[in-house]
Amino acid sequence: MSGPRYTPLVASLPSTVPFVGPETQERARQAPFTARLGANENGFGPSPRAVGAMKRAANEVWKYCDPENHDVKVALSDHLDVPVENIVVGEGIDGLLGYLVRMLIEPGDRIVTSDGAYPTFNYHVEGFGGDLVKVPYAGDWEDPVGLIEAAADCDAKLIYLANPDNPMGTWHPASVIEAMIAAVPEGALLILDEAYIEFAPEGTAPNIDIMDERVIRFRTFSKAYGMAGARIGYGIGAAGLMDAFNKVRNHFGVNRIAQAGAVEALTDARHLEQILSDVDSCRQRIAEIALEHGLAAIPSATNFVAVDCGRDAGFARAVLANLVASGVFVRMPFVAPQDRCIRISCGPEEDIDLFAAALPGALAAAAQSD
Amino acid sequence: MSGPRYTPLVASLPSTVPFVGPETQERARQAPFTARLGANENGFGPSPRAVGAMKRAANEVWKYCDPENHDVKVALSDHLDVPVENIVVGEGIDGLLGYLVRMLIEPGDRIVTSDGAYPTFNYHVEGFGGDLVKVPYAGDWEDPVGLIEAAADCDAKLIYLANPDNPMGTWHPASVIEAMIAAVPEGALLILDEAYIEFAPEGTAPNIDIMDERVIRFRTFSKAYGMAGARIGYGIGAAGLMDAFNKVRNHFGVNRIAQAGAVEALTDARHLEQILSDVDSCRQRIAEIALEHGLAAIPSATNFVAVDCGRDAGFARAVLANLVASGVFVRMPFVAPQDRCIRISCGPEEDIDLFAAALPGALAAAAQSD
Repeated sequence: MSGPRYTPLVASLPSTVPFVGPETQERARQAPFTARLGANENGFGPSPRAVGAMKRAANEVWKYCDPENHDVKVALSDHLDVPVENIVVGEGIDGLLGYLVRMLIEPGDRIVTSDGAYPTFNYHVEGFGGDLVKVPYAGDWEDPVGLIEAAADCDAKLIYLANPDNPMGTWHPASVIEAMIAAVPEGALLILDEAYIEFAPEGTAPNIDIMDERVIRFRTFSKAYGMAGARIGYGIGAAGLMDAFNKVRNHFGVNRIAQAGAVEALTDARHLEQILSDVDSCRQRIAEIALEHGLAAIPSATNFVAVDCGRDAGFARAVLANLVASGVFVRMPFVAPQDRCIRISCGPEEDIDLFAAALPGALAAAAQSD
Repeated sequence: MSGPRYTPLVASLPSTVPFVGPETQERARQAPFTARLGANENGFGPSPRAVGAMKRAANEVWKYCDPENHDVKVALSDHLDVPVENIVVGEGIDGLLGYLVRMLIEPGDRIVTSDGAYPTFNYHVEGFGGDLVKVPYAGDWEDPVGLIEAAADCDAKLIYLANPDNPMGTWHPASVIEAMIAAVPEGALLILDEAYIEFAPEGTAPNIDIMDERVIRFRTFSKAYGMAGARIGYGIGAAGLMDAFNKVRNHFGVNRIAQAGAVEALTDARHLEQILSDVDSCRQRIAEIALEHGLAAIPSATNFVAVDCGRDAGFARAVLANLVASGVFVRMPFVAPQDRCIRISCGPEEDIDLFAAALPGALAAAAQSD
């Protein structure tokens, strides 16, 4: 028996996990984390009304989900003032990125992204045989001009930019993004990942132009809306592109409970306001904790803060390892020179207290082993 | 502006929905269905303990799901007496079928299925450019021998068989399936879709041989466990094949609430027993209702009954349309000669009462328009 005949492309791929989850680490260390501040989850939690809607939906979970995600799309349409035809809903931004890459990318096609940007996007690109062209950050910012130049040079089909950025938390104002969209080369599509947009200052998101075929924007209920475990995100773009997702998507992919929670979450503006205020305070507190130890916090328009540990990647990795060993789950950027930082997600005060308590020891241990 | 550059394959695909959901029909008719008996959902509902676990998980939905589905796999491992390495968990069988097709199928590769079998599988095959070879049913049964012969003739990479079958509800005993597995041609993989296996008589499922690389089995929490809206299913097969899903799957695709519900559902054997008993009674009742009107119910090992309307497809379609117009959501097989039938899902007594009340009028109206 020779086993299944994989495609040559799939046979060539590694079996991988783009992110090791905290549960995996907890199983390995045989103890739970005391503070969960590594995955940019929103520990302040979702709207209680959204939780209520999800609990009610649990009673009806014997019914399949609506494959058209109709109620979610109508609610988003109202919320964004964008027609329903310009919205696609999927299994988180991760799921939608996978579908989009499948729609456009064949082996040998080129895709431009920043060196150190979202690994799950790269996972999808590699999964369809695309060639990734990586543009360095400019300082701790993604480089819109450099990305566009690279795309023009290599005839890219896709360009990826997150604004605000993950893992650094930095951001560009709308004017810079608008100039970038205007400069997208013929035949390229800009993926504007706005997973963190709700946390950003007024004037960060460009106006949505639903006629513009050069850009697709992705947003999510995982971050500001605190529903990461529900797996629901959405895209906004030209109607033809939105409809093309129907060629490839898992139509019954977005679960019924998530759909109910998302609709309700959009109605609770007061909770969102509270979250944004809590996150803002928490960002300041993380910066203060960093400063107390002579470390610099990178300014952030997200629900996390990248803290510059002030030395090389080896030092930052040692700080991270010591924090993790003490029960504080955090992560760090993958690529130099941003990997001199560790990345702390905002969360409830008691979690940040645990981080503050563990940091001095982690820094000392890292310095000792340096 | 020319818009995104789709792959030639994706450009050639239709924008489609493999199944129109009942919600879509309800929006079109501007009224809810009074009985939801069309999608083989389990209207008797999930274990109350599973619902409780899902409600508790809703409180923690700010956390991402475990991308390894560890707890679900351990629970399934115990339940099935199969090592964890031989299990893959995904976004329903639909999601897993999509990944599997992607892993094996390139344009021009051949896939064998029954003419009239699961449309979502065909959707995935066409989505990756595979050539479907369709084998007719033998009577109202899928034809294992015919499927194997066709696979050998066309050098198929995949063979699809559901046992018990959907849409007819018929089934083969384990001995027939075992003979089919033994005859799988070199280089082919048999997909044994056991979505309805819990409803089937003892002796329908072959023993699981985890060393056998010729077969992958799919099962789900959507049917007997009553959690269709949660979107969680699983595959059982050789460890190498299970691991290969990690090359392509959306690692964070199975939501946290579904994972919690699935683990708890497996512990409630008493509820499952009650469901099987309720479904068995309901199958008998549907057969009796059919008989009262001179119609024959096809024997079923599932949670639905195909009712032979005794004339041609046009007549069955008219009966169906009249049932739907009267508020009773049912479906019917797509392909001749099985499309002489309508398909009624089992459900609570009051829903079956509504079906029973609507059927005479639907038959009379269909006869009049014939």
